[in-house]
Amino acid sequence: MNEFVKHSVVIVGYGGMGSYHAKLIKDNGRLAVVGTYDTDARRGEASEKEGYPAYPSYDAVLNDPAVETILIATPNDVHKELAVRAFAAGKHVICEKPVTMSVEDFKEMTAAAERANRVLMVHQNRRWDEDFLIIKQMYEQKTIGELFQIESRVHGANGIPGDWRHLEVHGGGMLLDWGVHLLDQLVFMVDSKITSVSSRLSFILGDDVDDGFEALLQFENGLSARVEVGTTNFITLPRWYVKGTEGTGMIEDWSMVGRIVTRNREVEHVEPKPIQAGVGLTKTMAPPSESATLTGALPEPFRQPSSFYDNYVSVLEGTGNPIVKNDEVLRVLNLIEAIFRSARGGETVKNFDFY
Amino acid sequence: MNEFVKHSVVIVGYGGMGSYHAKLIKDNGRLAVVGTYDTDARRGEASEKEGYPAYPSYDAVLNDPAVETILIATPNDVHKELAVRAFAAGKHVICEKPVTMSVEDFKEMTAAAERANRVLMVHQNRRWDEDFLIIKQMYEQKTIGELFQIESRVHGANGIPGDWRHLEVHGGGMLLDWGVHLLDQLVFMVDSKITSVSSRLSFILGDDVDDGFEALLQFENGLSARVEVGTTNFITLPRWYVKGTEGTGMIEDWSMVGRIVTRNREVEHVEPKPIQAGVGLTKTMAPPSESATLTGALPEPFRQPSSFYDNYVSVLEGTGNPIVKNDEVLRVLNLIEAIFRSARGGETVKNFDFY
Repeated sequence: MNEFVKHSVVIVGYGGMGSYHAKLIKDNGRLAVVGTYDTDARRGEASEKEGYPAYPSYDAVLNDPAVETILIATPNDVHKELAVRAFAAGKHVICEKPVTMSVEDFKEMTAAAERANRVLMVHQNRRWDEDFLIIKQMYEQKTIGELFQIESRVHGANGIPGDWRHLEVHGGGMLLDWGVHLLDQLVFMVDSKITSVSSRLSFILGDDVDDGFEALLQFENGLSARVEVGTTNFITLPRWYVKGTEGTGMIEDWSMVGRIVTRNREVEHVEPKPIQAGVGLTKTMAPPSESATLTGALPEPFRQPSSFYDNYVSVLEGTGNPIVKNDEVLRVLNLIEAIFRSARGGETVKNFDFY
Repeated sequence: MNEFVKHSVVIVGYGGMGSYHAKLIKDNGRLAVVGTYDTDARRGEASEKEGYPAYPSYDAVLNDPAVETILIATPNDVHKELAVRAFAAGKHVICEKPVTMSVEDFKEMTAAAERANRVLMVHQNRRWDEDFLIIKQMYEQKTIGELFQIESRVHGANGIPGDWRHLEVHGGGMLLDWGVHLLDQLVFMVDSKITSVSSRLSFILGDDVDDGFEALLQFENGLSARVEVGTTNFITLPRWYVKGTEGTGMIEDWSMVGRIVTRNREVEHVEPKPIQAGVGLTKTMAPPSESATLTGALPEPFRQPSSFYDNYVSVLEGTGNPIVKNDEVLRVLNLIEAIFRSARGGETVKNFDFY
């Protein structure tokens, strides 16, 4: 195929994410949304208003030979069935995250794709987030020395939004929502086996799914990570907080406000003066003398050379490898299962990583 | 005794903490430093310059009938021996923290005090810290609803200060240093059993003791706590970050800069608008609408009615009960042992709390 041919996509599930995909694909030169399907007729109407014909049934999508790719943006519990049927009908699949709610389900899904020799790519789009790419560069380039601690947080105060995300049967909850993004970023960045995980889920809002969680991960290469999602945080802690052997880095939020502070190697070590802290003195927690550290801007991130959709097209055309690999997606699902086990049992979980 | 009689104190160990005690006691009307003893002759000279006679030996202190109280501010590994000898000589003891390096040692120490019918009070002075007293009030008064998460951190960038604090044999390391304060505050505040602890120690500076640690504590009443000490943090996270059912509270540092942000119950819930975050949209992590929350100042803390020294005098005179009780100190030491076990084994530790 040449670069002027557009690949047809039908979006299944035309809610918040489905319509967002339609907008993004419109800006992409190599894919074209040729229709949508949603079980909710009102969404079909909304789709037609935007110029995307609404298929009357999923079978109608599957039976349309003009459809090359099905993009699945439904609640999580039906991803697998929809994808397996798509492969059987000879379609390729882009699937929203979390691709499935379990390792076993994802194995069924990838087996079905392989049998049909079709592409399956999971929309782990936050590998393209600039904040993440800055941290990834700091990790690889040792901008503040060797990173030995990475804290990745997202904090909101809105509780769990929407409807089905409150329900376990649909794969709701924050670990499967923002959690899968943050864990995917971490596992994509750090090339080392996870040796243990210890976690807690939050159920403070009374939903039947977690409204947030925290997980401590230990990697074989010595790196410690903390991953945290909160929906009951009226004050936010930084999106990224990372410690290296030469300094500390911080990114406040998606506005990219942040900084790095490093040891000034040009200046001889001066023992800090004790400060009054509460009713006591502390030398340990006194700020270093002004000349002892250097404050700098965040580095410019290496950007991914192509967008998620560009990369998908190159995989479809056999000219490129997927940036989001299915064995990486499998590894993250397996990690999520370990986090659930750790939280439910109140235990540290080891010897689980598929690395 | 009447309030014009001053109780005599000899400070043993006239380093940073010993001389700080001398200054504080000078301001207190009911205690008087009558001398010091240090194995380092230069410190004896420094003491005499300040007007405190330097005893030539510890025996000389013990044999002086004018000495009522011995204040121990030496490295941690000799606290027990010095205290046990003090009790045998009929002296009362104020001891620096950590009082001992193990539960067993502290039991020996309290047994010796009981046999001699003498007072032993441990200088857990940070129970009087204003930042802590604000959080304690928020916990008790439910200022932001029921607190269900407490994060207590101290971050420095100076590494471990001084000399003996680098060495395990002297009881060095951050868990036994700032750790004992933060854990003591938490256990003093939260009247519930600790059901599990999971922790990691940091050894990034190459000392033979920990240069920091993090511990996740779970209490039976549902409260989760995170306690963290770091000496390699060039950017600091807030001293206190606490979550309640109605909002979030934060205290930056000992300057008492901070705020509380709570849900505005007067305003109907408005679903937040999605924001662009990296390459994706998020409704969950969008800031709540301006009218949906209220930002307020930290409450004024209830202050302890008397200082550590005032309280000590009242215990000595039989007119008051100790604010720092020895069974609380024992409980914290036992918790510290559990934190060491958890970190060394990479395990979650349960069924240990002396509550």
